Amino acid sequence: MFKGDGFMFFGAIEASGAKFVCCIGTEKGEIMERVSFETETPEITMEKVISFFKNKKIEAIGIGCFGPIDLHKDSETYGYITSTPKTFWRNFNIVSEIEKTLNIPVYFDTIVNTAVYGEHIWGAGKNISNTIYLTIGKGVGGGAIVEGKLVHGMLHPEMGHIFVNRHPRDKFVGNCPFHGGNCLEGMASEMALERRWGVEFKDIPENHPAWDMEAFYIAHALVNYILVLSPEKIIIGGDIIKRGNLLTLIKERVVKLLNNYVQNDKILKNIDDYIVLPKLKDDSALLGALALCFKK
Amino acid sequence: MFKGDGFMFFGAIEASGAKFVCCIGTEKGEIMERVSFETETPEITMEKVISFFKNKKIEAIGIGCFGPIDLHKDSETYGYITSTPKTFWRNFNIVSEIEKTLNIPVYFDTIVNTAVYGEHIWGAGKNISNTIYLTIGKGVGGGAIVEGKLVHGMLHPEMGHIFVNRHPRDKFVGNCPFHGGNCLEGMASEMALERRWGVEFKDIPENHPAWDMEAFYIAHALVNYILVLSPEKIIIGGDIIKRGNLLTLIKERVVKLLNNYVQNDKILKNIDDYIVLPKLKDDSALLGALALCFKK
Repeated sequence: MFKGDGFMFFGAIEASGAKFVCCIGTEKGEIMERVSFETETPEITMEKVISFFKNKKIEAIGIGCFGPIDLHKDSETYGYITSTPKTFWRNFNIVSEIEKTLNIPVYFDTIVNTAVYGEHIWGAGKNISNTIYLTIGKGVGGGAIVEGKLVHGMLHPEMGHIFVNRHPRDKFVGNCPFHGGNCLEGMASEMALERRWGVEFKDIPENHPAWDMEAFYIAHALVNYILVLSPEKIIIGGDIIKRGNLLTLIKERVVKLLNNYVQNDKILKNIDDYIVLPKLKDDSALLGALALCFKK
Repeated sequence: MFKGDGFMFFGAIEASGAKFVCCIGTEKGEIMERVSFETETPEITMEKVISFFKNKKIEAIGIGCFGPIDLHKDSETYGYITSTPKTFWRNFNIVSEIEKTLNIPVYFDTIVNTAVYGEHIWGAGKNISNTIYLTIGKGVGGGAIVEGKLVHGMLHPEMGHIFVNRHPRDKFVGNCPFHGGNCLEGMASEMALERRWGVEFKDIPENHPAWDMEAFYIAHALVNYILVLSPEKIIIGGDIIKRGNLLTLIKERVVKLLNNYVQNDKILKNIDDYIVLPKLKDDSALLGALALCFKK
């Protein structure tokens, strides 16, 4: 890795509760080098982060971070991971830790906001001012670009916890420590799916009723995002969504639930181009974190 | 009404399905003159609108309009009221009708977007970048300012139709022609309330179970708006919300439903300053329409 001939390099971190992915990349979104490691304690993990970036001659670093986090620049706890259930990381100032060690500018947002931003700059949401990115994994989270801007607001959106109607045949108690069986994460995360059916989601067969129920919950959430935000594109990431015909089932249910209320060809005629998989595959958040470094 | 001495006057129209309110006002939000009349056919109503504004020497007109409407400036049907159930108004180009007759610039948005914009400029959402305005009347609708911008997106938000969980003791079939008993409008509008209990909402006593049920639905919707948009202020307008302790019941339920998930003092300590009535009383949308005339 070197700097010269007008090339500039930037760093990016995708910090999830499960793993950290770090990379060096360019303004064009090319990834030159990457590492990833399991998320352990801040001491162990940050040491690995710093040793990767040290001496790389990068101009800045962007971080997409698991949350909740404090994004208010005028707050005393700006840059902190706040009330996370991962107790080791609670009240850890990840921004200052990197700033003081590497002495370069650090840009910071939620991992789902960097995911939607990555897709906005280089992916399925390119040139689109209103886009949602939802990821369904061990947890469920979402980020949004509204009228060209990343949404922060009071705190930051927590779309994965949106309340959803209960499927009439579902007796599952729910898996969310805060909202039980009321919210999307509680009913549709990998963990919810596996607890409900007592089997790893990878082993659930294509024709199992689990998928129709999963589509029910995700579609109810999407309908509400559509009614609240009026997005021009909805991008869904994570591993579950790649399974069988889940995406098709979701699209059918969204159209049916809206019941012609939202009169727009994106929904009525082009739903396959409206609810889509990430174009950047598993790198939406990492590339979005990189893009934060040169965000205007 | 005259023009001179550096004073400039602007027009505003609050066009709802029930009535049109027209006014002449200033850049400071002072209303100099106003009329209102029932919404009839476009021919009858627009004639009254034009005759009010004619010869008033106004610089521009802002319209907050019932919907759905087409807000995309590059669309062939920009300025139209589109698929409204009010058939006389379907596919009526309200913007061009006024532009061609009065020959001044016309600014156009949904009635709920102008309401939130009015409150943003002069009311309860002043100096706040993320605000929601919800109105609960014969219909239910909402507008939003997100990161300082009015939200349009694909079409415009239709927050009033957000899907809500059903109250466990509610057997009402729902009043929404599109979503039956699934959406907020179907379960919590004036008409839903009156059909469910068989009495005009003004005659429902304070201690009637209707209010707790009403609070249940509105709180579920607010929780979802909070999780999706992370607003810094929620403003609720309309007549129902002024009834008895409904607003208090809603606030209690919002805090309980979120269950400490959103760790922010606005919710945990200052809910009375977070969910509020409009400061502009019944003029939020009218003043917001006026403010559209000098929106940057």
